[in-house]
Amino acid sequence: MDALARIEHALETALAQGIGQDGPPRLAAAVRHAVFPGGGRVRPRLCLAVAVACGDDAPEVSDAAAAALELLHCASLVHDDLPCFDDAALRRGQPTVHRAFGERLAVLAGDGLIVLAFAHLAAQVAHRPERLAALTAIVARAVGLRAGIIAGQAWECEPAVDLTQYHREKTAALFAGATAAGAAAAGVAADPWYAVGETLGLAYQVADDIRDVAATPEALGKPIGQDAAHARPSATAALGLDGAVARLDELAQAAIAAVPACPGAAVLRALIGQEMRRLLPAALAARLTV
Amino acid sequence: MDALARIEHALETALAQGIGQDGPPRLAAAVRHAVFPGGGRVRPRLCLAVAVACGDDAPEVSDAAAAALELLHCASLVHDDLPCFDDAALRRGQPTVHRAFGERLAVLAGDGLIVLAFAHLAAQVAHRPERLAALTAIVARAVGLRAGIIAGQAWECEPAVDLTQYHREKTAALFAGATAAGAAAAGVAADPWYAVGETLGLAYQVADDIRDVAATPEALGKPIGQDAAHARPSATAALGLDGAVARLDELAQAAIAAVPACPGAAVLRALIGQEMRRLLPAALAARLTV
Repeated sequence: MDALARIEHALETALAQGIGQDGPPRLAAAVRHAVFPGGGRVRPRLCLAVAVACGDDAPEVSDAAAAALELLHCASLVHDDLPCFDDAALRRGQPTVHRAFGERLAVLAGDGLIVLAFAHLAAQVAHRPERLAALTAIVARAVGLRAGIIAGQAWECEPAVDLTQYHREKTAALFAGATAAGAAAAGVAADPWYAVGETLGLAYQVADDIRDVAATPEALGKPIGQDAAHARPSATAALGLDGAVARLDELAQAAIAAVPACPGAAVLRALIGQEMRRLLPAALAARLTV
Repeated sequence: MDALARIEHALETALAQGIGQDGPPRLAAAVRHAVFPGGGRVRPRLCLAVAVACGDDAPEVSDAAAAALELLHCASLVHDDLPCFDDAALRRGQPTVHRAFGERLAVLAGDGLIVLAFAHLAAQVAHRPERLAALTAIVARAVGLRAGIIAGQAWECEPAVDLTQYHREKTAALFAGATAAGAAAAGVAADPWYAVGETLGLAYQVADDIRDVAATPEALGKPIGQDAAHARPSATAALGLDGAVARLDELAQAAIAAVPACPGAAVLRALIGQEMRRLLPAALAARLTV
């Protein structure tokens, strides 16, 4: 099975586990709407790519870690789209959860996805208990209050914000968790892998800023020009379009250089370059050196 | 250490673990506001009482389970109080989190408490990995999408609701999880304990309905008469005050009868009676036979 098929299967397994036949039907529909159809599944693909590079000796463990990361990412999107935050109308080309199901079910669907992420991990990794605590800690750190995506989002509610810390937590923390979880799922030390994911997360944020000015709304699945419209800081505003592409190239090179020695290092490095090019419109992707 | 001291200490440990020195300070304050000062700490006290009745051979494990249950309870209160649900102004005698810190930080504080519950459990039970998967599953089931408190809350968003299922999930599921977790934390089979907690949860819901008509706002820490004001179904509306007290007595007897054989069964049964009397104003408590 290729990585995307593994991820979709793991997510279907998790939702089947989490949603009963006799639960509230609109909640079940809201949760499904939040998870399917997916976006790029970037974080779980990164997790699996690292697991495979490290030997992937327990594929069911890495599948569960990948699914947990994606469920938490989906939960964060549902809550970030709420009226009190972005009040977004569209996500992945379809109405956001609160527009389709109302604000109350959007709050609950996000909550439920967070619970399901940890429940799914525990259920699928129960037979390898020595890996469960480490994986739970890695995943929780990536999303948590201390320096995870919840902390990142909360910086939007503070009077003074360090933008580097904001981006590191709001975006890069979950990428760092994805690479660390991929290694831990394969039974390998996770710590050396954080830098790879964190650098990729910062690269992804730059690519996101570039797409917001250089992609079409159809390709993006949501309106473009949002950073300028909301006066949000962005790499293109700070560096110009050419400068942002050059910055993305630097970050991609740094991520590739950070890949620790492992059986599949060469394949993983090539995959990272391919992924970085995929993130940009073709004309800009051609400028990348990775 | 008595149970309440153990719980407060475990909650302080969890918050110290979850909130860093350099995280967003208002988020940290919102999370603390959601957890301290506490209410009755009913669910973690129940969890510890069962753990003690079952021998409590790993107190740090039962402390972690108790704290996780309370963190999840606090998260549900923060989100249930949001403007899109109850838009409550007061909780435990102080402003609700969204009134004190804004709606965005209330959403994030609730999310963060859910993550922290699972992270704390994993961190504190890592040295007993064989108990971690079972405890995570029990706790997740108690709050989850299928039949936990999130499902219970979601029934408020459905066109047709089975009231018994609504109360079982919205309130009793977390009590059932508390008794099951107490047993599992002590290394004892959890399944026989679900009925104790579920019955106590239904009793607690009846007591809550009784207090809403028979307590003072000062004793309750929030306005009384809310069920009638919101035309919510309640045991006192359905059975009258006397009938509701009789129903509570029946449920308390049933919970006591359901306690499985264990070293501390007699003490636990006495504790349950004492707790049921504590829930009611003195004049009504005197009518209970337990």
